Amino acid sequence: MEIIIQFNKEDMDVVVQPSIGWQDLNEQLAKMGSGLFFPVDPGPSAKIGGMIGTNCSGTNAVKYGTMKDWVINLTVVLADGTVIKTRRRPRKSSAGYNLNGLFVGSEGTLGLVTEATLKLTVVPEDFSVAVVTFPSIRDAASAAAEVMQTGIPVAAMEIMDEVQMKVVNLGGATAPRVWKEVPTLFFKFSGTRAGVKENISLVQKIARIHKGSNFEFAKDAREQKLLWSARKESLWSMLALRKDGEEVWSTDVAVPFSRLADIIEVSKKEMDDLGLFASILGHIGDGNFHESIIYNPKEERDKVETCVKNMVKRALEMEGTCTGEHSIGWGKKESLLWEVGPDTLGVMKAIKSALDPYWIMNPGKIFDRQG
Amino acid sequence: MEIIIQFNKEDMDVVVQPSIGWQDLNEQLAKMGSGLFFPVDPGPSAKIGGMIGTNCSGTNAVKYGTMKDWVINLTVVLADGTVIKTRRRPRKSSAGYNLNGLFVGSEGTLGLVTEATLKLTVVPEDFSVAVVTFPSIRDAASAAAEVMQTGIPVAAMEIMDEVQMKVVNLGGATAPRVWKEVPTLFFKFSGTRAGVKENISLVQKIARIHKGSNFEFAKDAREQKLLWSARKESLWSMLALRKDGEEVWSTDVAVPFSRLADIIEVSKKEMDDLGLFASILGHIGDGNFHESIIYNPKEERDKVETCVKNMVKRALEMEGTCTGEHSIGWGKKESLLWEVGPDTLGVMKAIKSALDPYWIMNPGKIFDRQG
Repeated sequence: MEIIIQFNKEDMDVVVQPSIGWQDLNEQLAKMGSGLFFPVDPGPSAKIGGMIGTNCSGTNAVKYGTMKDWVINLTVVLADGTVIKTRRRPRKSSAGYNLNGLFVGSEGTLGLVTEATLKLTVVPEDFSVAVVTFPSIRDAASAAAEVMQTGIPVAAMEIMDEVQMKVVNLGGATAPRVWKEVPTLFFKFSGTRAGVKENISLVQKIARIHKGSNFEFAKDAREQKLLWSARKESLWSMLALRKDGEEVWSTDVAVPFSRLADIIEVSKKEMDDLGLFASILGHIGDGNFHESIIYNPKEERDKVETCVKNMVKRALEMEGTCTGEHSIGWGKKESLLWEVGPDTLGVMKAIKSALDPYWIMNPGKIFDRQG
Repeated sequence: MEIIIQFNKEDMDVVVQPSIGWQDLNEQLAKMGSGLFFPVDPGPSAKIGGMIGTNCSGTNAVKYGTMKDWVINLTVVLADGTVIKTRRRPRKSSAGYNLNGLFVGSEGTLGLVTEATLKLTVVPEDFSVAVVTFPSIRDAASAAAEVMQTGIPVAAMEIMDEVQMKVVNLGGATAPRVWKEVPTLFFKFSGTRAGVKENISLVQKIARIHKGSNFEFAKDAREQKLLWSARKESLWSMLALRKDGEEVWSTDVAVPFSRLADIIEVSKKEMDDLGLFASILGHIGDGNFHESIIYNPKEERDKVETCVKNMVKRALEMEGTCTGEHSIGWGKKESLLWEVGPDTLGVMKAIKSALDPYWIMNPGKIFDRQG
């Protein structure tokens, strides 16, 4: 279930089986010399089927959107064994209900996806990467907000806090480079040569206004890789720091841009006050960030749970969401109820019951039949 | 029901009532000096509520996507009177089922939208418009396909056939300018000054390769208006040509890029063979086009209906859709069944019955309870 079934170069789309990884798909497209790629870029091990299930995103979302924006049609096995295709192969349609939009992000609770047609896009002519440091999270967040509000088409804009930068240094995966252990923004740029150059210069100006310093941008592909390496190694570096018996709790929320600095500051303080080792890393252009906490499940589980719940509640008070890209799964069922309330949850459950009357598809995820 | 309830400048979103027109919304945003706009641009009279109902698009869709891409949340009155809000105000979320994606495009059959929060985007620094003529629809379509396949970020790319250009001349709304009555592509460009200039030059090169000639681009805002006027006046010019008792039938389909020239050619020939006066106009970058037919309902209705049904069948054979942006309404219920088949239609109906058990919301649209 991991092959490309059909590649329609002229139409810029591809029909795939759900177990193909997005990286594998892109490697195959590159090998064919297609000049096209699939832009949704979550964790490297993610497969198309799972990405459909969670409506995933990744660093490219600020430019290219999320999974739901890239699905042309799905073949789905329903609870009663019926096989349906959501639509044919037009890139745009307003024919009937948008079943793509419904199945994407439904975490397998409405049906089992066996085939997907995905839009592809053109590999940009040029790329670059830039890194800039800030005295505080608030300065970094203000700079990021201004980049968005100015409409500079960055290809990615990621934040890492001082703890996360320290974690990368400790992990040693990017040695011999030693990073400044301060809040840092990572930018990707893509487009034409002239466009990339122009955007770098605009971002540099904005960074300066918000006390950004140590602005570096990559002059070639090797330097790009080097500069992006801290972002790329962040999760592995965190995992590598675990001592025996420790685990990493990774969670995400999203809020409107204007509240991002607030929520990060308060959430960091709470973790510090409780003596938890936690880092912040985020897709700041989407108002979406992750908190990774190293903890000992035997001794600190309750403390971590409380912290995560508090962060979710804070995000909801700021009109945000309990998850920007990780989905509900088992862990955030209660949060979903807080977020949308019983009536909206009731609509979701009514749809679930209509398509899966015995609740047999991926049971226990998103919500429970009772309660 | 036509006011802006809340404008969140920093978050780049706006909360509106459904009867506000998209043009009115943009005028108000401009008056505030917000630097932001709402980019979905269907017919000038369209209102946000209707645009949500049909998942509408317009000329900007090739750059900015369709209505579903711009909705952050909806307040909806359900069939039983319950009022729900689909989600809070994050620009990105993967919390529970994507009810925005379901209600957008459901043509009012699942609930009545009373409030919507919409994303806004930054008004680009610079704009331009270009027009280029081609010896045939096929040449114009090939040029358009290459523009898409090269990834040039045009802000709009529209096709008008020789009949439609003649209609504009006959209508006289753009006089004293007389347009060449040949297939013509209309481009909008937007971005930074350097970016717009670069894109015009790239498009000009591609047009030349595909036998494009008379390439004109606007040097200032006045010329932009002038060049875009033929596109803007196309529908009114057609309506103005009706004689007493005649009507205009306007319909749309969408197909994968590679089939666009094929379907336009065959559909035009059929209209000609039947002696119908029909023009073609399309959002060619989305594979979506419109056919407008002037006809006498008493004498020619059957002939027109057959033509439209044949065009839909052709679009479906080419893996397209019976409607790219007009939706199903009353007119295309049979086409929807042909397009998705009874099982997929059954899923849509199951959702309808789950949320509106007595089928009281906008009855008769999209599908019927029986059949």
